Amino acid sequence: MKALLLKELGSDLQYTEAADPVPASDDMVIVELKAAAFNRRDYWITKGMYKGIDSFPIILGSDGCGEYQGKQVVLCPNINWGPGYFPSKDYKILGLEHNGTFAQKVAISKKNIYPKPAHLTIEQAAALPLGGLTAFRALFSRAGLRAGEKVLISGVGGGVALIACQMAIAIGAQVYVSSGSEIKIQKAIELGARGGANYKNQDQMKKLASDIGGFDVVLDSAGGDGFQTLLKMCNTGARVSIYGGTAGNLNNISAPNLFFKQLSILGSTMGSDVEFKKMLEFVHHYNIIPVVDKQLSLENGQEGLNRLESGNQFGKIILNIP
Amino acid sequence: MKALLLKELGSDLQYTEAADPVPASDDMVIVELKAAAFNRRDYWITKGMYKGIDSFPIILGSDGCGEYQGKQVVLCPNINWGPGYFPSKDYKILGLEHNGTFAQKVAISKKNIYPKPAHLTIEQAAALPLGGLTAFRALFSRAGLRAGEKVLISGVGGGVALIACQMAIAIGAQVYVSSGSEIKIQKAIELGARGGANYKNQDQMKKLASDIGGFDVVLDSAGGDGFQTLLKMCNTGARVSIYGGTAGNLNNISAPNLFFKQLSILGSTMGSDVEFKKMLEFVHHYNIIPVVDKQLSLENGQEGLNRLESGNQFGKIILNIP
Repeated sequence: MKALLLKELGSDLQYTEAADPVPASDDMVIVELKAAAFNRRDYWITKGMYKGIDSFPIILGSDGCGEYQGKQVVLCPNINWGPGYFPSKDYKILGLEHNGTFAQKVAISKKNIYPKPAHLTIEQAAALPLGGLTAFRALFSRAGLRAGEKVLISGVGGGVALIACQMAIAIGAQVYVSSGSEIKIQKAIELGARGGANYKNQDQMKKLASDIGGFDVVLDSAGGDGFQTLLKMCNTGARVSIYGGTAGNLNNISAPNLFFKQLSILGSTMGSDVEFKKMLEFVHHYNIIPVVDKQLSLENGQEGLNRLESGNQFGKIILNIP
Repeated sequence: MKALLLKELGSDLQYTEAADPVPASDDMVIVELKAAAFNRRDYWITKGMYKGIDSFPIILGSDGCGEYQGKQVVLCPNINWGPGYFPSKDYKILGLEHNGTFAQKVAISKKNIYPKPAHLTIEQAAALPLGGLTAFRALFSRAGLRAGEKVLISGVGGGVALIACQMAIAIGAQVYVSSGSEIKIQKAIELGARGGANYKNQDQMKKLASDIGGFDVVLDSAGGDGFQTLLKMCNTGARVSIYGGTAGNLNNISAPNLFFKQLSILGSTMGSDVEFKKMLEFVHHYNIIPVVDKQLSLENGQEGLNRLESGNQFGKIILNIP
């Protein structure tokens, strides 16, 4: 089969011939992939930021849509989440250590295969799994966002942030966004967000919070020194889900701001198999269509990583698989 | 009446004659106080760390036990918590701005008056309200501590930490403590804690976590640079309640540690009127007796603040009111 290979850390992804995958156990099958999508995770892996990378080449990719037994299917990227609300100790994500979706075929457990939501194209469905699952858990299972609440979604260009934005709008929350780019804020407003602020401008952020009377829920994937600003924008009892740390360690967090306002900071990543199923139903019920930033052929996959690195994307970067 | 007055910020408390309190509304009554107790809050107020201090003298004190209509009663320190799970915007604590319990009499709403738990002396009951309420909410309502879980209670000499320790032991949690003092750790073990570590010694803290296989719940009132150590001692899905910030801002918090382990950091302070009632029932049901560090006459109240400042106390400092 054709595949994109990561042959060593720091190298470009190479489009090449690779051995067909072989099911490792009786419950595993082969899915013929038609589209895949990038996640920030893929970029971090190529930079050596994930542990447990000791054998090469690797086929990256956690998001995929394809065909199995003549039907269009979308893949749940969870491996060994387990039966609980929190992941088991053996939890892995498709695409490391197990070979992922940046290839013509992938070996995967039957229970990871779900019918493609009928309202989505193959490319749109490929844009959904990891981002949709992460957003669904962080927003609803963890932060318990409800209709009418005011929610701030930071860094709205990213795949998780954008689908979270769409999900929050769908249930009738009052959605605001932050971004380092005025254009992205404008695009989010076109999707239904009520407004936004540039996170590089502290005064603009504070003004947003004060204009709307503070936030009930915040979704963040940056952390870093800006996190304490988000906490100051919160109302009493607010829930702040954090699912990433692109800006590094959290600093200068005021304890009195935390306890007097009774804030909850909720770490979140991915979601359970149950949540994945619920997320697919949710997206279908509300007719949510993931935003596609760009489509590339599998052959040109490295361009996707470059675009992720640039931070200029608005939505998911898709790979069309021949 | 006799009272302890704070006449200006930074000055000693003065034992002197003061005007009897006058009920400000129809639902308010006068309680004759027999015992009161100090909280860290009283100390911070004298140091000017609380907002809204613009008129003197002030009678401090949030904890009190006394007599009303010939019955022994204990006082709930909540003023205007409101009907919800989170406090209303008008929420205040007895003892600022409203004159508190460091006096022979206090004016208070009838609904703040509860029968003294039968198993407690007047002094023990006076040791309970603020600390018991704070511990109950932080441990159970916020962190959801359950029997069998491993809980770390930091800074175990303090009033809230100690009663939390007793409450957690009572329900059958596996309780461990931290302190800067080996003697306090030893005293907590005598109360039923399974072990502890000195928080000044990072290696000892890490060893404790690794020996027991990590914590499910942590209770902290320090924050500061040590908070990130507590987070590293946590298991996947752990809940960390923080109800104070004596060590200052939280720094160097690893975002991946938060989201990969799906930790919850839960700010908590005081509790609702409903929680106060439940806390009294809980303390009675489990026969919990607050630890009294020292009893002082109202006249010598300043010694109580000095002892709080020293950090040498183990349990509550009580004022006997003539």
